Amino acid sequence: MARIVQKYGGTSVGDVDRIKNVAARIKAIRDQGNELVVVVSARAGVTNELIARAKALCAIPSEREMDQLLSIGEQETIALTAMALHGIGVDAVSYTGAQAGISTDKVYTKAKIKTINAKPLINDLKAGRVIIVAGFQGIDDEGQTTTLGRGGSDLTAIALAAAIKADKCEIYTDVDGVYTADPRVVKYARKLSEISYDEMLELASLGSKVMQSRSVEFAAKYNVVFEVRSSFNNNPGTIVKQEVAYMEKVLVRGVAVDKDQAKVVVSNIPDKPGSAAKVFKALANAHINVDMIVQNVGRAGVATLTFTVPLSEKEKAVKAIEIVLQEVGGEVSLDENIAKISVVGVGMKTHSGVAATLFEALAGANINLELISTSEIKISVVIAKEKAEVAARVAHAAFGLDKL
Amino acid sequence: MARIVQKYGGTSVGDVDRIKNVAARIKAIRDQGNELVVVVSARAGVTNELIARAKALCAIPSEREMDQLLSIGEQETIALTAMALHGIGVDAVSYTGAQAGISTDKVYTKAKIKTINAKPLINDLKAGRVIIVAGFQGIDDEGQTTTLGRGGSDLTAIALAAAIKADKCEIYTDVDGVYTADPRVVKYARKLSEISYDEMLELASLGSKVMQSRSVEFAAKYNVVFEVRSSFNNNPGTIVKQEVAYMEKVLVRGVAVDKDQAKVVVSNIPDKPGSAAKVFKALANAHINVDMIVQNVGRAGVATLTFTVPLSEKEKAVKAIEIVLQEVGGEVSLDENIAKISVVGVGMKTHSGVAATLFEALAGANINLELISTSEIKISVVIAKEKAEVAARVAHAAFGLDKL
Repeated sequence: MARIVQKYGGTSVGDVDRIKNVAARIKAIRDQGNELVVVVSARAGVTNELIARAKALCAIPSEREMDQLLSIGEQETIALTAMALHGIGVDAVSYTGAQAGISTDKVYTKAKIKTINAKPLINDLKAGRVIIVAGFQGIDDEGQTTTLGRGGSDLTAIALAAAIKADKCEIYTDVDGVYTADPRVVKYARKLSEISYDEMLELASLGSKVMQSRSVEFAAKYNVVFEVRSSFNNNPGTIVKQEVAYMEKVLVRGVAVDKDQAKVVVSNIPDKPGSAAKVFKALANAHINVDMIVQNVGRAGVATLTFTVPLSEKEKAVKAIEIVLQEVGGEVSLDENIAKISVVGVGMKTHSGVAATLFEALAGANINLELISTSEIKISVVIAKEKAEVAARVAHAAFGLDKL
Repeated sequence: MARIVQKYGGTSVGDVDRIKNVAARIKAIRDQGNELVVVVSARAGVTNELIARAKALCAIPSEREMDQLLSIGEQETIALTAMALHGIGVDAVSYTGAQAGISTDKVYTKAKIKTINAKPLINDLKAGRVIIVAGFQGIDDEGQTTTLGRGGSDLTAIALAAAIKADKCEIYTDVDGVYTADPRVVKYARKLSEISYDEMLELASLGSKVMQSRSVEFAAKYNVVFEVRSSFNNNPGTIVKQEVAYMEKVLVRGVAVDKDQAKVVVSNIPDKPGSAAKVFKALANAHINVDMIVQNVGRAGVATLTFTVPLSEKEKAVKAIEIVLQEVGGEVSLDENIAKISVVGVGMKTHSGVAATLFEALAGANINLELISTSEIKISVVIAKEKAEVAARVAHAAFGLDKL
């Protein structure tokens, strides 16, 4: 008997038949004598429908109301999944985020989990019930509904796995696992059987659609070993954990493409202490994730700051910056026609020459680099959006990741 | 300045454009300096869609999960309505039932309101905010989501009006007010400018689609005067209150048709003390509303019990009865092909001959009576379903309700 947390994403519970399929999977695991907590997302498409309705009513909807609105997607799925289990004779009970004791801070649309009160869950598990928990949502100290941001359901699953000391955590999605690159872009991409938190983290934060970085960070912090796998077949997925035994020395584990970033250029700001700080403080106050910051000093006395932000936050970012620039001076411009290509691997920590290999490969494909940033285990470059796929393919090949 | 509670039903908030219309109405009232609490229902059709999904997964869905599921309909509308108000510059905040402090008992799908904690609402009103509250839902002492049953949003509005001591309570719906009969059935039906709680209560409990009886009972108990009116025009509606000044002496105020009842016949049960009690206790335990009970003693030693139940509860009723009959003996049968026609009026308290007029009118139209039941201010008869419309028309005419 094991205590297992499973998470099913939006496509896995996309309609009534798929919910039945998930219920059958749950029953099979349950019938083997396991204890099960299942986290589900909103049905695929529901969240986008709700956002469309919201935007038809208000150009920039209040984040509190957005959370109040979006949390219903998961609440629908938990009830339907519990009913599907009842329909096949499995004792099950649904929990909203609030009912599951998922207490968060007050940052609407991207709240952080503070604590989980695991007691009611564990009581229900001991009573033989399968527990279905709404992913993506929580409740703050004042009873307000909060959501955890993109990929929040994964975070819910991993946090619950830590809270109830689960033996296993399985993240079911519409892909088979983590690949060396997106197989739709890079034909020769291979599935990885294992990957380290650090590598997964970089891939996640770099636009790999498999998981958001926050969930991986959380898993690393609480050492929750999890498996990413498909709910549409029984293939083994990719296990994500602290230490990975490598079959061979590899420099680069994967290539990621992120087309959901915009480049922000803040030019002609006074080149004096505090100007840049004011810009980034305003962005931080608006809870905007900033990446790949570069500063150039140009003409005498003025500087140019360049960085990337998620496409979905571009208006909010520009608005926040404009307020600062009214005070300090300067202009802001936006370039949406970019992509970020990254190569990731713990192996590169101890090897030099990775950057040279990447830049050479891209130059060979006549691709211009607009921004470069590096960490111990990754190199990212910003290039023109239309070159993204070619760049991914040549990088994948250059690091020997192509299938034999 | 007045403190006003308004309630908008499902068709009034049926889509984004209608929500905008409701927001514009709210802004107009708000701009006159009034304090506003607005209760909204789920968008028309949403509840039925959710029920269809539930039934596709489980023949008889768990009532707890049903409440968890159905409560999302209103939660969507509150967030969208608040956003629509933000879009036109009105400060507004949405409250779920739980956030509005609507505390209920634990009877899923038809919970009763125990208390309302009005303090946060009154604080927000004083801060100048319009408050949008999800109708139909509450929370029990253990944090479980409950719903209030059919017409629950009206109940929410009236209970809130009592809790915050509102000056006015307006129930906006897709009809202009309360009519002497359903105008789609009886061509000469007239709108009433006022009606007493007692009359409204009988009409409500007798299948008038305007309001459920629980809401009217609640209003009568707390003496909440309310107006039923249309959200699609500015016509005055019908005011419902304790005492109604009559322009003329009327015996009957309205005719109601209810086609959502089934007749249950429990035959061949032992005619001894306790048999009937066991049947009705089982129905009560299953929270099924029973109406128009008649008992006939037939052959020696056995009796026949006849009564009506809401169509939506027929399976549950038969199931509950069958368990009792296994013990006491007897058979149960169901007739869905019935309608209940009722005439209502406080005037009939002091007049005899109302029953004779009704039965004569129905006999004149060749309509057979299957069951009869009477109260101080109403007479109901059960007839064949296909005769329902004709019966309503002849009764309406017989009591002089037709328009001149």
